[in-house]
Amino acid sequence: MKLYGYWRSSAAYRVRIALALKSLPYQTQAVHLAHAGQHHPDYAALNPQQLVPLFIDDDGSRISQSLAIIEYLDETRPAIPLLPADAKGRAQVRALALSIACDIHPLNNLRVLDYLRAELGADDAAKNAWIAHWISLGLAALESRLIQDHPASRFCHGEQPGLADCCLIPQLYNARRFGVDLAPYPQLLAIDAACAALPAFAQAHPQQQDDAG
Amino acid sequence: MKLYGYWRSSAAYRVRIALALKSLPYQTQAVHLAHAGQHHPDYAALNPQQLVPLFIDDDGSRISQSLAIIEYLDETRPAIPLLPADAKGRAQVRALALSIACDIHPLNNLRVLDYLRAELGADDAAKNAWIAHWISLGLAALESRLIQDHPASRFCHGEQPGLADCCLIPQLYNARRFGVDLAPYPQLLAIDAACAALPAFAQAHPQQQDDAG
Repeated sequence: MKLYGYWRSSAAYRVRIALALKSLPYQTQAVHLAHAGQHHPDYAALNPQQLVPLFIDDDGSRISQSLAIIEYLDETRPAIPLLPADAKGRAQVRALALSIACDIHPLNNLRVLDYLRAELGADDAAKNAWIAHWISLGLAALESRLIQDHPASRFCHGEQPGLADCCLIPQLYNARRFGVDLAPYPQLLAIDAACAALPAFAQAHPQQQDDAG
Repeated sequence: MKLYGYWRSSAAYRVRIALALKSLPYQTQAVHLAHAGQHHPDYAALNPQQLVPLFIDDDGSRISQSLAIIEYLDETRPAIPLLPADAKGRAQVRALALSIACDIHPLNNLRVLDYLRAELGADDAAKNAWIAHWISLGLAALESRLIQDHPASRFCHGEQPGLADCCLIPQLYNARRFGVDLAPYPQLLAIDAACAALPAFAQAHPQQQDDAG
């Protein structure tokens, strides 16, 4: 198994957490987003979307999109499941994960921030306000949803970490990186602390990666 | 079953296609995005994210996020499957769906366009250039991916429509609405034509909905 990623990419970080929770060994290949490595012809041939992560299985299968990779890992390596056993639980966990992966993270991607600056003339203050707006809106909804559905749960869904936690922790890392105030989200911070106590989350952290700058 | 949606919402449109492909009867409840219906306290209590769609199952279960709803429908009503039977196929279909649901659609949502105008002073030309940029970038990658993986396939993955088609068709509708040139994507247009020939896709079309404006 091989993972093409980048230390600070939220989407790659999600997959690293999933692999670590399942104790799966894998090779890493850094794609330097800050130096446009994702647009290199060799990488574009592997992944036409020119985004990270990209996962290569032992048989050579190429899978892109972090949530598709994690679902695939969960189906092909089912020990230590990352999704609940029941359809309703799976739906709740997927909805939490997608509310981050669709409605928060893509808006604050490097390529979007570059466009805001280059094409819409956004200065640093406008760029940071944009980032804080979408992260705060998304995290507030997530906090409400978790309090409504799982008020006493240690992780996003129950007592074991799973797909939603794989998405939440990188998003909180990202929020801190951009100075977004997390004090209004005590439930998210409690889950963050529960995850931080586990070796899998520590091992997957951006600063622990070989390509960390 | 009940679906809270909006005729022109891409995400609600995806779920309508899935329900129609499975021939499942359901009630509809329009949430008027153009009149901020998604922020009404009654709806916000049901869905803290204040987005459509929201699906209510017969037992009262509430499920948000279009892809989570479609996966749930596929697990609980497995006749006429929308995902392939093998893990590798499922991963490919999910990756195609997510490349639309994460990396194209959220950037062109109403709330994002409103922010561009109100906070970043984007005029109509700048807004339309933004929309065209993200849609074209995403569709070009999708076209390459489909030609690479499924050159002779009638739908996104094989000879039956599924989850990826549920995402592609609303995205093409959206692209046309904003005047994006689709000529560079013959493979996507061929899939679009194959889908348009099926009653389920016709029935789910925005113009066929009671709340169409």
